[in-house]
Amino acid sequence: MTTRKEVADRAGVSIAVVSYVLNDSNYVKEETRRKVLQAIEELGYETNMAARALKMRKTEQLTVLINHLGNPHEAGLLLRLEEDAAKHNYVLFFQTFQKEKESKLKSLLNGRVDGIFLLGQSLQEDTLQHFRKQNIPFVSVTTPVSRRTEDVTCIDLDWTFEYTRLIRLFKAKGHGRIAFMAIRDPEHPLQHRLEAFRRAMEIERLPIEEHDVFYAEGGLQSAYDTIKLSLSAPDRYTAIVSANDLMAAGIVAACRDEGVHIPNGLAVAGSEDILMSSQTAPPMTVIHYPREKVGEIAMEVMLAKMQKRPVTDRILQATLVERKSL
Amino acid sequence: MTTRKEVADRAGVSIAVVSYVLNDSNYVKEETRRKVLQAIEELGYETNMAARALKMRKTEQLTVLINHLGNPHEAGLLLRLEEDAAKHNYVLFFQTFQKEKESKLKSLLNGRVDGIFLLGQSLQEDTLQHFRKQNIPFVSVTTPVSRRTEDVTCIDLDWTFEYTRLIRLFKAKGHGRIAFMAIRDPEHPLQHRLEAFRRAMEIERLPIEEHDVFYAEGGLQSAYDTIKLSLSAPDRYTAIVSANDLMAAGIVAACRDEGVHIPNGLAVAGSEDILMSSQTAPPMTVIHYPREKVGEIAMEVMLAKMQKRPVTDRILQATLVERKSL
Repeated sequence: MTTRKEVADRAGVSIAVVSYVLNDSNYVKEETRRKVLQAIEELGYETNMAARALKMRKTEQLTVLINHLGNPHEAGLLLRLEEDAAKHNYVLFFQTFQKEKESKLKSLLNGRVDGIFLLGQSLQEDTLQHFRKQNIPFVSVTTPVSRRTEDVTCIDLDWTFEYTRLIRLFKAKGHGRIAFMAIRDPEHPLQHRLEAFRRAMEIERLPIEEHDVFYAEGGLQSAYDTIKLSLSAPDRYTAIVSANDLMAAGIVAACRDEGVHIPNGLAVAGSEDILMSSQTAPPMTVIHYPREKVGEIAMEVMLAKMQKRPVTDRILQATLVERKSL
Repeated sequence: MTTRKEVADRAGVSIAVVSYVLNDSNYVKEETRRKVLQAIEELGYETNMAARALKMRKTEQLTVLINHLGNPHEAGLLLRLEEDAAKHNYVLFFQTFQKEKESKLKSLLNGRVDGIFLLGQSLQEDTLQHFRKQNIPFVSVTTPVSRRTEDVTCIDLDWTFEYTRLIRLFKAKGHGRIAFMAIRDPEHPLQHRLEAFRRAMEIERLPIEEHDVFYAEGGLQSAYDTIKLSLSAPDRYTAIVSANDLMAAGIVAACRDEGVHIPNGLAVAGSEDILMSSQTAPPMTVIHYPREKVGEIAMEVMLAKMQKRPVTDRILQATLVERKSL
């Protein structure tokens, strides 16, 4: 079994310093403390004390990597996470995740956070490994469990279930040809909603033609531009589901400008229930994403992970909010 | 004149270390460097070199203190700031400003940022002083120049001008009794929009009665609840301006539910032009806050301040977007 002496030698410090670190004393300089923690880890020195000390000194800060500031669905999740973090005396800060700058995350967040929330992004293994070594846990919201990476705990909906329920509602109103507005970027975290929609259509034994899948960038204007031309086609889908609500609002706006009545000319549904969805004309039928509950549970899971308690992925259930677009 | 020797003595380091710090060398430990910088400042040691060294080592990070994550107007500003920061290789991170935790900011941001953007918040003098000493500049967006604190450069609109123009439009359409939806919290950064509205009404020689000023919390639902009852009063205002668009959307929703036609029964206008404002029924007439331009200029001003170039407050002009609510 590894001794404190061996840890001290490896780190190039005295045994006393190792003890200070194990006792989480403020006496030790950050750099020295890191050296000792590294030696402890490399040598596999393990006691309850070591386990405790290995846990980074608390920064009382958590970060959230977001995808797009302009998306009110994400803002709603952040709002709830922030409220719950504050209850536990954590400060939350946010930054937009940029894949091409992922390697910078390590230095940016070093010593600054006790935990990292993802909004569905898939990080590279070396990024995960870096934070794992520092016992900084990851919790991901809106990542499907099917795409989870080891150590990243996920909280999301079962989208196949949700879309199947929504498709049944469309079917009950006489729709058989249902289009989908997806996000173009194949790496985008919402891509799995399209996959789930395809499976749900299969469950409901409805075909989905390739030209009934539309791709836009995620925002209102982009969906508006994408859908507008197709609205005048004589033989087209009679209903459409959008992977997010901003794009659904773009479809509603395009129908308004093209004189297509909703729902008689086209039935529309969104997948999140952002505030705007209740204010469009007509108000939109949507899957109500339980942001409050998801945020609350994400924070619970984060606390549990920081305290080394066991956690599992969590699948929540949404509600269908029927308004006048369907 | 103070010498390097005196600085070294004061900081308890060698003269060589002082030189390293002045040359911004990576050789010096952060803690030592801070001691030296403190000694330099206390002793008033000044050379070009010192001035350069006094500037904190670049973190290449900027932060924005936000008021409310759920407000798309703020999100839009952040989006633009973020884009412009990225062009200059800065990472932007955000956190919600909480007045009761202001004292924590000093430790939270220590050594982590090269500059701080405010969204209208008034910070305490000791907070400002703390960052000023570290040469970390402040730039405030949406703070009126009239409320500016020394060293905080402001970029905003001239709200008196903007509201006067809007009121003239109301007058041209026959309205003489115009209500205002303000934010209840007297400390809120948007409070000055109410003050400007009062002045604009005075310019236009229109009285504004105390019971024609409504107060809500800033969100859609809160404005909805506030305004709903008053809509059935037989003798009331015929038009209303809201300090922000989310509250204006709440007024539109209340009119819809109370059967008040817009604009015949009530004319409504917002002050920001968030995306939702173009999607309500009817779409809203608004002051279009030039978020892109404001974000761009805010970043320009921040860069200038970091480079010690002279800057001035900037007052931009909005455009009036006429839609169907007026």
